[in-house]
Amino acid sequence: MALRPVLLTDRYELTMLAAALADGTADRDCTFEVFARRLPHGRRYGVLAGTGRLLETLADFRFGDAELAALREQGLTDPALLDRLAGFAFTGDVDGYAEGDVYFPGSPVLSVRAPFGQAVLLETLVLSVLNHDSAIASAAARMVGAAGGRPCIEMGSRRTHEEAAVAAARAAWLVGFGSTSNLAAGARYGVPTAGTSAHAFTLLHDDEAAAFRAQVQTLGTGTTLLVDTYDTMRGIRTAIEVAGPELGAVRLDSGDLGDLAVQARALLDSLGAHRTRVTVTSDLDEYAIAALAAAPVDGYGVGTSLVTGSGSPTAGMVYKLVERDGVPVAKTAEGKRSVGGRKNAVRRHDAAGTATAEVVSPHPVQARDGDRDLLVPLVRGGRLVDDLDPAARLRAARDHHERARTALPAEAWSLSRGEPAIDTVSS
Amino acid sequence: MALRPVLLTDRYELTMLAAALADGTADRDCTFEVFARRLPHGRRYGVLAGTGRLLETLADFRFGDAELAALREQGLTDPALLDRLAGFAFTGDVDGYAEGDVYFPGSPVLSVRAPFGQAVLLETLVLSVLNHDSAIASAAARMVGAAGGRPCIEMGSRRTHEEAAVAAARAAWLVGFGSTSNLAAGARYGVPTAGTSAHAFTLLHDDEAAAFRAQVQTLGTGTTLLVDTYDTMRGIRTAIEVAGPELGAVRLDSGDLGDLAVQARALLDSLGAHRTRVTVTSDLDEYAIAALAAAPVDGYGVGTSLVTGSGSPTAGMVYKLVERDGVPVAKTAEGKRSVGGRKNAVRRHDAAGTATAEVVSPHPVQARDGDRDLLVPLVRGGRLVDDLDPAARLRAARDHHERARTALPAEAWSLSRGEPAIDTVSS
Repeated sequence: MALRPVLLTDRYELTMLAAALADGTADRDCTFEVFARRLPHGRRYGVLAGTGRLLETLADFRFGDAELAALREQGLTDPALLDRLAGFAFTGDVDGYAEGDVYFPGSPVLSVRAPFGQAVLLETLVLSVLNHDSAIASAAARMVGAAGGRPCIEMGSRRTHEEAAVAAARAAWLVGFGSTSNLAAGARYGVPTAGTSAHAFTLLHDDEAAAFRAQVQTLGTGTTLLVDTYDTMRGIRTAIEVAGPELGAVRLDSGDLGDLAVQARALLDSLGAHRTRVTVTSDLDEYAIAALAAAPVDGYGVGTSLVTGSGSPTAGMVYKLVERDGVPVAKTAEGKRSVGGRKNAVRRHDAAGTATAEVVSPHPVQARDGDRDLLVPLVRGGRLVDDLDPAARLRAARDHHERARTALPAEAWSLSRGEPAIDTVSS
Repeated sequence: MALRPVLLTDRYELTMLAAALADGTADRDCTFEVFARRLPHGRRYGVLAGTGRLLETLADFRFGDAELAALREQGLTDPALLDRLAGFAFTGDVDGYAEGDVYFPGSPVLSVRAPFGQAVLLETLVLSVLNHDSAIASAAARMVGAAGGRPCIEMGSRRTHEEAAVAAARAAWLVGFGSTSNLAAGARYGVPTAGTSAHAFTLLHDDEAAAFRAQVQTLGTGTTLLVDTYDTMRGIRTAIEVAGPELGAVRLDSGDLGDLAVQARALLDSLGAHRTRVTVTSDLDEYAIAALAAAPVDGYGVGTSLVTGSGSPTAGMVYKLVERDGVPVAKTAEGKRSVGGRKNAVRRHDAAGTATAEVVSPHPVQARDGDRDLLVPLVRGGRLVDDLDPAARLRAARDHHERARTALPAEAWSLSRGEPAIDTVSS
């Protein structure tokens, strides 16, 4: 059933709207902010991703007849509610960190200002998109860092929901992955796609040489042959016999990858295949990638750990009402407290351009040399500020990420648990 | 861009098909099987989910002009490949465990028999759907068990990809959750939806009493009031003052839930609100639910841990070629080995109806009293064997799950790490 994204939401957003319509509070001017209370697993920074994907759904964030019928069937029959939804269009303002920027605990990565009855309807979708995509981007950035310039291929589609897979491929490319296996990510976002063959292709054939011949004939000698179906070293010999020493790459997908890479490199060299690359792809995460830094590996394929956020599959961001008709508001009972008031956010940098602090405050922040305002306008009066297509928006985010990450202090590259790379201060 | 699910796939499925077309192996008769090598975290059983969702995509698993254009743009221009894809329709057979059944390491939960060129195209989508949905269902089943009859509400949409959220809500209901917050899951699958209000609704108002009045006026005294925005016990007093002692429930969403539940129950009783329920909802997982067994709690809302599979966000299932033109095949190099040959699968039960063993074998299994054949026909000649709508298919899976889980031995209910509840044997 093709229903619009407005139904990708929690029922309570609509019951709150119904109740607020009844007592006249639905049109109070509100600011909601999105932030993470902490970074998972003692990570040093997070990466904001998903903003572009979110903005791209906004134009279609409307209730048509099919959506209203679906609500009625679920018992949401309040006439004032349905009437309001039938005419719904978001007309508010959204500011946020530019997609791809890094963030820290308390960073207000998105700020939505609109009447309550509009802003509340965005909550679930905003959080779903940002929590998922930021979790993937944050893990992926650590992998790119650990790979130290060697290309990373995202290939985790089969280990996550089929649509989450597309978003994961997008998020991984945003932070510096070189390509993805996911064809839909190529089609929707222009992410370069890669892939050649699986063990099944070798097993389909009468022998390994026949499989390699078929692949080289169709995909060319620049292809990557998967050599570990039967006996890895024999597979490499067969690969070079079939393709010649100009074979593009061999892929190792099982066993002790560091040890096998050394053996594979030596064998390839002895066969004259000096330029044939060695790609490894089995159960890698940022730690396994780092452990292979000294091995003769030319590229990493990352699957499960990428699409599951390497132990943190959600970024844990929340969407909190911080201001209502100009009055700062906040939950005050024990647990899950937040700071009231619409925030300003600035990143301080030293003379060398290295980030030194994240300033987040409901008060104006006094400007210093090296400051960068972190909140940029994204939506004004319900309309997107930029007019980029999804692929161009993603390329811009990739470029912005590169700049923001490069400005972080060296502590940020540590994979061990610790404090955020820079402190968040309130003035 | 609305592209069909055929693009939710890995590029290598198509390059393999191109190479197999070139050397004539694309039409070899193949059987691929889906299984998990292990259960995560020493769990005692897994729950298969997603089969229905997968079958529902099959009718639309075709390459139209838009999909073929997208492939060409990504460099997949082989004329024989594109010609084959333009005429593609799945005409093979699929057998599998009935959705909702339990599984163990090596259980062949899905078996696809078709020419290589058809079966290979399904791989990524099959795994994405089954790995995601089974991960959620497997975690959710442990929560339902820990809740011991108290209702569980799924409310994790905001912590996962927006489409994964719908599938998660479906998977949770399949294993016995009572409802979900997700409206799309209600619309697509008939899952009951629930939800009333958030802290933002209280903060929107001038004071807590005003918020409660608005909610009760619109949603009735049977509603659930969120009482922990300012001072939880004062919030409960205000709730009963506003709604009277017939208030449906209070919700506690922060703090020490066990302690607060005891206090809340005592206070509600002292106010004459003996039938007002206490619902708790903050960062619960199966262990936290179990720890609250002795607390006066009437229902659990579960979010993050549900949609992230409580530490195991993917089921780790693989899709392996096990037979080609009647010949058993298997990878033999170190790591990731599998057993060749198309498998039969039977669950043995004792005279009391309790499961005792999972028999999985490429050879015929000798029948005994109490056996249940686990593989049922799902698709024949490309057509679904049942003609249920998505909601009816989900209800059938929920019923099947209840039966399959009830037959497990008592060890299955343990939340501690250990061995699978029954052994998988090969004859």
